[in-house]
Amino acid sequence: MLCGMSFNTFGHMLRVTTWGESHGPAIGCVVDGCPPRIALSEADIQPFLDARRPGQSRHTTQRREPDAVRILSGVFEGKTTGTPISLVIENVDQRSKDYSKQATTYRPGHADYAYDAKYGIRDHRGGGRSSARETAMRVAAGAIARKISSEVELTTYLCELGGDPIDRAAFDPQAINHNDFFCPDPAAAERWAAMMDEARRDGDSLGAVVECVATGVPAGWGAPVYAKLDAEIAQAMMGINASKGVEIGDGFAAARLRGSENADAMRPGGEGPDFASNHAGGTAGGIATGQPVVARVAFKPTSSIRTPVATIDSSGAEAQISTTGRHDPCVGIRAVPVVEAMMALILADQKLLHRAQVGAGLGE
Amino acid sequence: MLCGMSFNTFGHMLRVTTWGESHGPAIGCVVDGCPPRIALSEADIQPFLDARRPGQSRHTTQRREPDAVRILSGVFEGKTTGTPISLVIENVDQRSKDYSKQATTYRPGHADYAYDAKYGIRDHRGGGRSSARETAMRVAAGAIARKISSEVELTTYLCELGGDPIDRAAFDPQAINHNDFFCPDPAAAERWAAMMDEARRDGDSLGAVVECVATGVPAGWGAPVYAKLDAEIAQAMMGINASKGVEIGDGFAAARLRGSENADAMRPGGEGPDFASNHAGGTAGGIATGQPVVARVAFKPTSSIRTPVATIDSSGAEAQISTTGRHDPCVGIRAVPVVEAMMALILADQKLLHRAQVGAGLGE
Amino acid sequence: MLCGMSFNTFGHMLRVTTWGESHGPAIGCVVDGCPPRIALSEADIQPFLDARRPGQSRHTTQRREPDAVRILSGVFEGKTTGTPISLVIENVDQRSKDYSKQATTYRPGHADYAYDAKYGIRDHRGGGRSSARETAMRVAAGAIARKISSEVELTTYLCELGGDPIDRAAFDPQAINHNDFFCPDPAAAERWAAMMDEARRDGDSLGAVVECVATGVPAGWGAPVYAKLDAEIAQAMMGINASKGVEIGDGFAAARLRGSENADAMRPGGEGPDFASNHAGGTAGGIATGQPVVARVAFKPTSSIRTPVATIDSSGAEAQISTTGRHDPCVGIRAVPVVEAMMALILADQKLLHRAQVGAGLGE
Amino acid sequence: MLCGMSFNTFGHMLRVTTWGESHGPAIGCVVDGCPPRIALSEADIQPFLDARRPGQSRHTTQRREPDAVRILSGVFEGKTTGTPISLVIENVDQRSKDYSKQATTYRPGHADYAYDAKYGIRDHRGGGRSSARETAMRVAAGAIARKISSEVELTTYLCELGGDPIDRAAFDPQAINHNDFFCPDPAAAERWAAMMDEARRDGDSLGAVVECVATGVPAGWGAPVYAKLDAEIAQAMMGINASKGVEIGDGFAAARLRGSENADAMRPGGEGPDFASNHAGGTAGGIATGQPVVARVAFKPTSSIRTPVATIDSSGAEAQISTTGRHDPCVGIRAVPVVEAMMALILADQKLLHRAQVGAGLGE
Repeated sequence: MLCGMSFNTFGHMLRVTTWGESHGPAIGCVVDGCPPRIALSEADIQPFLDARRPGQSRHTTQRREPDAVRILSGVFEGKTTGTPISLVIENVDQRSKDYSKQATTYRPGHADYAYDAKYGIRDHRGGGRSSARETAMRVAAGAIARKISSEVELTTYLCELGGDPIDRAAFDPQAINHNDFFCPDPAAAERWAAMMDEARRDGDSLGAVVECVATGVPAGWGAPVYAKLDAEIAQAMMGINASKGVEIGDGFAAARLRGSENADAMRPGGEGPDFASNHAGGTAGGIATGQPVVARVAFKPTSSIRTPVATIDSSGAEAQISTTGRHDPCVGIRAVPVVEAMMALILADQKLLHRAQVGAGLGE
Repeated sequence: MLCGMSFNTFGHMLRVTTWGESHGPAIGCVVDGCPPRIALSEADIQPFLDARRPGQSRHTTQRREPDAVRILSGVFEGKTTGTPISLVIENVDQRSKDYSKQATTYRPGHADYAYDAKYGIRDHRGGGRSSARETAMRVAAGAIARKISSEVELTTYLCELGGDPIDRAAFDPQAINHNDFFCPDPAAAERWAAMMDEARRDGDSLGAVVECVATGVPAGWGAPVYAKLDAEIAQAMMGINASKGVEIGDGFAAARLRGSENADAMRPGGEGPDFASNHAGGTAGGIATGQPVVARVAFKPTSSIRTPVATIDSSGAEAQISTTGRHDPCVGIRAVPVVEAMMALILADQKLLHRAQVGAGLGE
Repeated sequence: MLCGMSFNTFGHMLRVTTWGESHGPAIGCVVDGCPPRIALSEADIQPFLDARRPGQSRHTTQRREPDAVRILSGVFEGKTTGTPISLVIENVDQRSKDYSKQATTYRPGHADYAYDAKYGIRDHRGGGRSSARETAMRVAAGAIARKISSEVELTTYLCELGGDPIDRAAFDPQAINHNDFFCPDPAAAERWAAMMDEARRDGDSLGAVVECVATGVPAGWGAPVYAKLDAEIAQAMMGINASKGVEIGDGFAAARLRGSENADAMRPGGEGPDFASNHAGGTAGGIATGQPVVARVAFKPTSSIRTPVATIDSSGAEAQISTTGRHDPCVGIRAVPVVEAMMALILADQKLLHRAQVGAGLGE
Repeated sequence: MLCGMSFNTFGHMLRVTTWGESHGPAIGCVVDGCPPRIALSEADIQPFLDARRPGQSRHTTQRREPDAVRILSGVFEGKTTGTPISLVIENVDQRSKDYSKQATTYRPGHADYAYDAKYGIRDHRGGGRSSARETAMRVAAGAIARKISSEVELTTYLCELGGDPIDRAAFDPQAINHNDFFCPDPAAAERWAAMMDEARRDGDSLGAVVECVATGVPAGWGAPVYAKLDAEIAQAMMGINASKGVEIGDGFAAARLRGSENADAMRPGGEGPDFASNHAGGTAGGIATGQPVVARVAFKPTSSIRTPVATIDSSGAEAQISTTGRHDPCVGIRAVPVVEAMMALILADQKLLHRAQVGAGLGE
């Protein structure tokens, strides 16, 4: 996943290096390791950015960014060439004035204090590098990854908001893109809308849980010991802003089952076994079993709230802060496309690795 | 964390490469990147291996391994030299006969099928490379890591077994090493003993949750975006055998709080702020805040159970398996020293990285 | 040096990822791992790009590129923040028409055939990714590296052109930037001008040897076995377009000396020993000794010549090619700033690594 | 090549981590990333170790080491499993008494001073980690690499000793293994024997140049920009003890040719073009062209000589040293199998990478 010291690079074989601050002139990324001869244009990427784009409902930040992506390299006559693909998005709606107080006062739950503690300097405008704005490039890179591992189908949605879970019996994949919450349960979506309105009224925020299911992952992708597919997913998801927990398959619930309940019995099937259940979430020993890969990610409530919170300023003196900028009352909503993008990146990476790991073509 | 393609290597600056199968002649690791002039001998490592060693109570596998570690390189006249440290442990009590059926029959929940799907070959004896035996080397390497980041204190324990959590009010750190479960709540330890006896009688197994608290981690360790301290911990912990979930701080519970409840208010303190709470678990933006770093890891119940489970054999034909070998009825128990070792490895690595990241001594 | 699979990334701790093709809209790089609080602006980088810029004398390509660099991230209020620094240069003078024949005919000595053999597709315009244009970003990144390892002084020059070496007795560092050849021997520079004019008249090209001397490198930088300072330099230099050989210290000449002649005797000195000679070129066991680090790099004559050469086209049919585009008759000349930049990048990287390797501050 | 911070690890996909000191109990390595289902036993490795083994003629060190290798993991029932392969060789003939003076006195040309400058401690016995003894593990790992890239044939030999080159017209590959110098020119071998006897008599040493030719490397292996095949070879070769220079193809001689002389004209051929010459040494743009890959490596004369040399001791005081231990009067001789092993490791690595780089099987 993370290679060497490049803390802004993600992936082994398909490597994404992102750059840019919330209020700089632009953000961008370099996608290195994309195989050649794949048809690619901005039109393959833009729809995923649009799905993540802010300001699409009253439940997300009112910052208005077109987030129009440009490809600056790595594509020739509509096809990838195997050379690095440079993507850039200009920052348009910056409104630096909203953020002046952050220059001196640390927002609890934000990276402000930690960045100063580490670097002794930070671009405070809109959170600078620590802003979720960076995740736009993960989504853009994820769109390229999808073209590499096209046999995989991804379904990603909110399964819980503000502690209110969806009704699994009412799960309707068609519903996911027909409400403001990527919610597969229309009834839950209605409840959540009310909860969000109330939270916003209170100047408060809510947490959420995102679930991602990858079907069509061939048995054998992934690798043992320190690069387990589960571990790659865990690092990728825990690296998303505001994420605090990751589960594979039954996750913490598995710790409450007995071995006899948790066993995914196998029966003879077509290709590979026919599994009676999927408590494991599609992996064993860190390697894909051919079952759907299932991951869940917990997002804390947005730290930027209007409710005043006690804090300190950069001189260490007592202070209070209530964030008046434009923020997502629930970062979990817009995290849905980001979680899906990270899963896409991991699976494309694993696909490219797998044949090398097993020495495919050694005999050839 | 994971660098490049070496799927058996862990760490950036302090790099641990493990090798060996459960029933091979030996297991071992190479610890590269340990700074020079640190006093080190087998006596610094052995106690941690002893804490993990099987067969210490009726609640863990009866496999008897002395797990005596030898240092083969990297230490001269009792001090590290900066060259790679090679550690080896001979496999003594192998009992291959216990495992013959695994050659042809896939154990549900184990890596058997996945390894065959990937590699087309596997050392089936005791799970081969996928056996938890490999974690002995993580514990050995962790002992070296502790000497590097000696300012950090680690407390690790089971906080839940078979769905039965400890009583936080009864938390007693002294108790942890005085029962068979690394349990800080003596009353819970008694209940767990009964649950384990019953599960063992039923030929079944139980899951558990391990919690690790690192105090003394200086604000500033860790790095943003793709190497967040949270993400490094998540990958490390999710890479431990049988782990299915990882939380930092409040984890999934944070997704059920409002922003106003989840905020860790700051007040002026001594060095660094005085935090009113630690919902975040010691990190912000992926960087340590100086608060205790808190991680929780969910372990599924042992997949090897005496209760028969439907499965298939390597020819794809229907089969049944009930594991009669010597196994831990709850792998979570012996995972405690492993979780602590992984945390030690991450923090030592981050300590070595931090000064390079911030260019310490640039002016010097 | 190279980490993992990112074949467009250079460095360990200070990592540079370049992107862009000769005739795309722009070229750029991301510099990750630069320490915070270093004063940086375009003005620190532009002079080095200007030194490499084409079209400055009749002896280099007449392509006219302003090569104006822009910083898009990682710098706030004139100082680095520790986040990735994105640099971009627009391609202005592209003249694609010059290059049409390259679409179908392979230029001997160029990457045309090899790229097609590997990728089955290539951006043929001006050599696409394989163009020396990419080296502009190495020079830009090198300018940042210089600010990190400011204790080091670099002197780089042509020591041989077309087989005609400089007279070491006439070595004048002041002369280097006062002729068209970065030549420290004014008399040689005059001879070379005549040789170049003749070669150009003949539609031919010449090779050259670049020498780089780094003084002020502290003893201890570098690391043993597979990351020897010599090896890092060798990979960096051999990775520059048209480079075919690298020497450290006496290089191949050392293979012709006896051990008694080659020994660099030591006498008591101020800090560190006083060396009687520097046959070793500043390293021992891959680690800097405190003496000047000396590297030499051989550059083949430009492959693009007007003289017709037999070749094949992409269909495999017989063809002839004589390059009529604008090219450097001697790529070695403009390689001088590139060699120096690579040395700067290696030394800054080693400086950042050194304190982590030796655990500086372990006791602190 | 080198990944991340593991300075004792070599390779991307096929990764070799070596450990051990000259006079420790053993030396060893871990080979990670070897594909599964390759027949492997000690018998595949031992012959290459025997070729490198000291004490085989009067022209190499009289240290007597059986260098018997053992495989401790990664092989099951005679086949590789895809898990790490651990190799170990016990150190038998250590004779520490030979080396006592090295504890306090720095040997010019050796790593003694540099290791102390970096680490403040070193295992002085026989050079500790900096001893060429480490290269035994490169040879052992190289034997595994050969089985991965079996389509490649390697021919490696001394082409120059003590400044006396072979006669290319007299080149006889059959002769290489029938003299004490891996020399393809029997007449040169006789001259060299006399030169060596004289140097030994004088208590002096000689340098040499090793040439390695790899035929059968498919066009397309290798990768552009920072991982050029040439650059990978350069780092690998410059990382071998006592190496001071590396050339690909014509190397420095190419810098003395005109473009028209240096061009490797292409004509229609069978698979791939028919090249009229191979000045480039089998690569273009860092990618293999299908021609033989040709590398040359310069080795300085052994630094350990009986002739007294002025030096300092660890207190900085004046001293004199003349090495009386058992040493190779020309390290270049025993470097031949090491150069070949490094080439084998690079090519196996590139083979595994290539299919992933080009996304082989993307459509599958």
